[in-house]
Amino acid sequence: MTTVSHLRADTPGCIHRIHLNNAGAALPPWPVIRAVQQHLDLEAQIGAYEAADHAAPAIAGFYDAIARLLGAKPHHIAFAGSATDAYARALSAIPLRPGDVILTTENDYVSNQIAFLALQKRLRIRLIRARDDAAGGVDVADFESILKKHRPKLAAVTHVPTNSGLVQPVEAIGKMCREQEVWYLVDACQSAGQIPLDVEKIGCDFLSATLRKFLRGPRGAGFLFASDRALEAGLEMPLPDMRSADWVGENKYISSKTARRFEYWEIPVALMLGSKAAAEYALSVGLDQIENRVKMLADLARKRLNELPGVDVLDKGVELCAIVTAHAKHWNPDTLLAQLQRENINCRISPLTVAQIDFPRKGVQWALRVSPHYYNTEEEVERVVEVLGKIT
Amino acid sequence: MTTVSHLRADTPGCIHRIHLNNAGAALPPWPVIRAVQQHLDLEAQIGAYEAADHAAPAIAGFYDAIARLLGAKPHHIAFAGSATDAYARALSAIPLRPGDVILTTENDYVSNQIAFLALQKRLRIRLIRARDDAAGGVDVADFESILKKHRPKLAAVTHVPTNSGLVQPVEAIGKMCREQEVWYLVDACQSAGQIPLDVEKIGCDFLSATLRKFLRGPRGAGFLFASDRALEAGLEMPLPDMRSADWVGENKYISSKTARRFEYWEIPVALMLGSKAAAEYALSVGLDQIENRVKMLADLARKRLNELPGVDVLDKGVELCAIVTAHAKHWNPDTLLAQLQRENINCRISPLTVAQIDFPRKGVQWALRVSPHYYNTEEEVERVVEVLGKIT
Repeated sequence: MTTVSHLRADTPGCIHRIHLNNAGAALPPWPVIRAVQQHLDLEAQIGAYEAADHAAPAIAGFYDAIARLLGAKPHHIAFAGSATDAYARALSAIPLRPGDVILTTENDYVSNQIAFLALQKRLRIRLIRARDDAAGGVDVADFESILKKHRPKLAAVTHVPTNSGLVQPVEAIGKMCREQEVWYLVDACQSAGQIPLDVEKIGCDFLSATLRKFLRGPRGAGFLFASDRALEAGLEMPLPDMRSADWVGENKYISSKTARRFEYWEIPVALMLGSKAAAEYALSVGLDQIENRVKMLADLARKRLNELPGVDVLDKGVELCAIVTAHAKHWNPDTLLAQLQRENINCRISPLTVAQIDFPRKGVQWALRVSPHYYNTEEEVERVVEVLGKIT
Repeated sequence: MTTVSHLRADTPGCIHRIHLNNAGAALPPWPVIRAVQQHLDLEAQIGAYEAADHAAPAIAGFYDAIARLLGAKPHHIAFAGSATDAYARALSAIPLRPGDVILTTENDYVSNQIAFLALQKRLRIRLIRARDDAAGGVDVADFESILKKHRPKLAAVTHVPTNSGLVQPVEAIGKMCREQEVWYLVDACQSAGQIPLDVEKIGCDFLSATLRKFLRGPRGAGFLFASDRALEAGLEMPLPDMRSADWVGENKYISSKTARRFEYWEIPVALMLGSKAAAEYALSVGLDQIENRVKMLADLARKRLNELPGVDVLDKGVELCAIVTAHAKHWNPDTLLAQLQRENINCRISPLTVAQIDFPRKGVQWALRVSPHYYNTEEEVERVVEVLGKIT
């Protein structure tokens, strides 16, 4: 395996910051930075459409790289402007009628929760959230019983729901969705790049993710996986454009047969090429090795935080990953980040508005989120806890 | 006015190409290139969320700059990933029921045509296209009579429909829409940056545009204007997220009161800052001066092309702008661009699939699109025509 010092040498931001906000956005490695810059330079020199023509093989390489990351094929992959954008395209493709049920979990990403409530309001679908079990993740038996009893139109689960290090059992749920023949949408926004993903094993019909988090790609980039089942069923976006479809007659259009039907024509090609570089970089480091390392660093962070007086580690679940959340009554959420940044440490505060179900149950109104990645070190984790320990 | 040589000195691509594909994507000026690069560098050094925090005043400046470009206020403006993305957000916000009418024109941007057909299929709305008049643009009297007779839910017009240099009478139509109290969506994708825009004069409820064309901004950036009428009526995207809305309780969210309700949380900040620089650059050159110059260059191109044996200029309308389209039987659309590129000239071919109504009526299956901008010169236009004249 590539040494950590090599990985840090690839990451120019390492010399400036102890960056433990990878769940927000990770520091990019040089191959990503260069891929974006080089294409922007080319666009400025010869024109953006002309540069895209020139980069056609590399653009095709984006779909290859993401497909390899997921154990899918290139025709399953669509570029989107963000994970939320990708998720919305999938969600809006499910044919929903009043009374239809969407089944999700209590621990889910805030933007998805808002989207479900909007669907409830606009289309009068019924939102059911399977309850959590005592360990903290979704109660799989409850999920199954709701699947069988309510026959939802869609099951939507977020692999790592952002508010903590919880990892949901997406494969177990996928197996049940396949048995019950329910459309299954997985939000892999926080898991892509830190946990290996295999869409066959997960059994999802759609999977959305962003590039900027653990994949260490650029902002403004996301992707959507669409299964053959979904494509063959003719699922499509409500408002396709000239990339999603071909206009073949005055009143006729034909949708693309591949996941391209979930794309819009205008794509920030430089960001797409940076995304390709990010996916390839993750594959070259190795997702299994990445998973092992980030879990080791996160476990270390939780251990050390638990040793601090008055500090509660909030993460709860059978499987935990790189996101570490903690709370202390003597920490002030309005000044904590600045106190850390004075020591060149980047973390983040999660406010109540992103965890309206999760945080009240944990008895907190906010949480400090510390999210290491494989290019961070044990020394950096120890340093953060040391600084936090000095705050009174 | 800034001299043309100064404007060309600001445009590094000028020394490489005669770039007459501004209707596709324009060559960016240095302030745009630098704004994007500098922010990407900052993200790589200190983290992307941290860089966004640092750039908060400049991010606010994006909304100011676009607002000034449109004669609007910052709260009316939303960033989007493209013009089509912005347009789709507006279109999807109009409450449509089976049987509702959408009124548009025959000359309209392909992606919008596809979107209308999709709505027809999915929601069983009725699409009516007002006919063109003899001059080539929409027949305003016909538009008005359809407005009064059919009471459409939405009037949607593309200011400059891409397939030719036609400029539609968006202000005359807006006046009628205001009188009839019909929601009015204007696609300004090709007009923004070459023709002054004033949302008060146009009278639109929504206006969408891209940055990469005549505004000379980055790829992957667009914006949406939403009027106070639209905002106060509570129009919103079907699937809002944590930027569009706040999650305030387990089953409750509150939409933003401003155009922010049409934004998603993830924004490629570097592209937003490049967009700000592009809008400011256009304002500093002056939209009136820009309009005069591009129309002068386009008129010259049409005049010279008309002088070539066997070449037909296709643009038709009372008002024409920077997009020049032409056809010749002796030109081969599969090799024409390469022939031009050998002389370092960038143009584009518009195929039938982008003009299923317009091109058949003009008796062509494709067109050469030549689109100068204010940083091009008469010599460059003459050169292109000279090269085209030599093709047999």
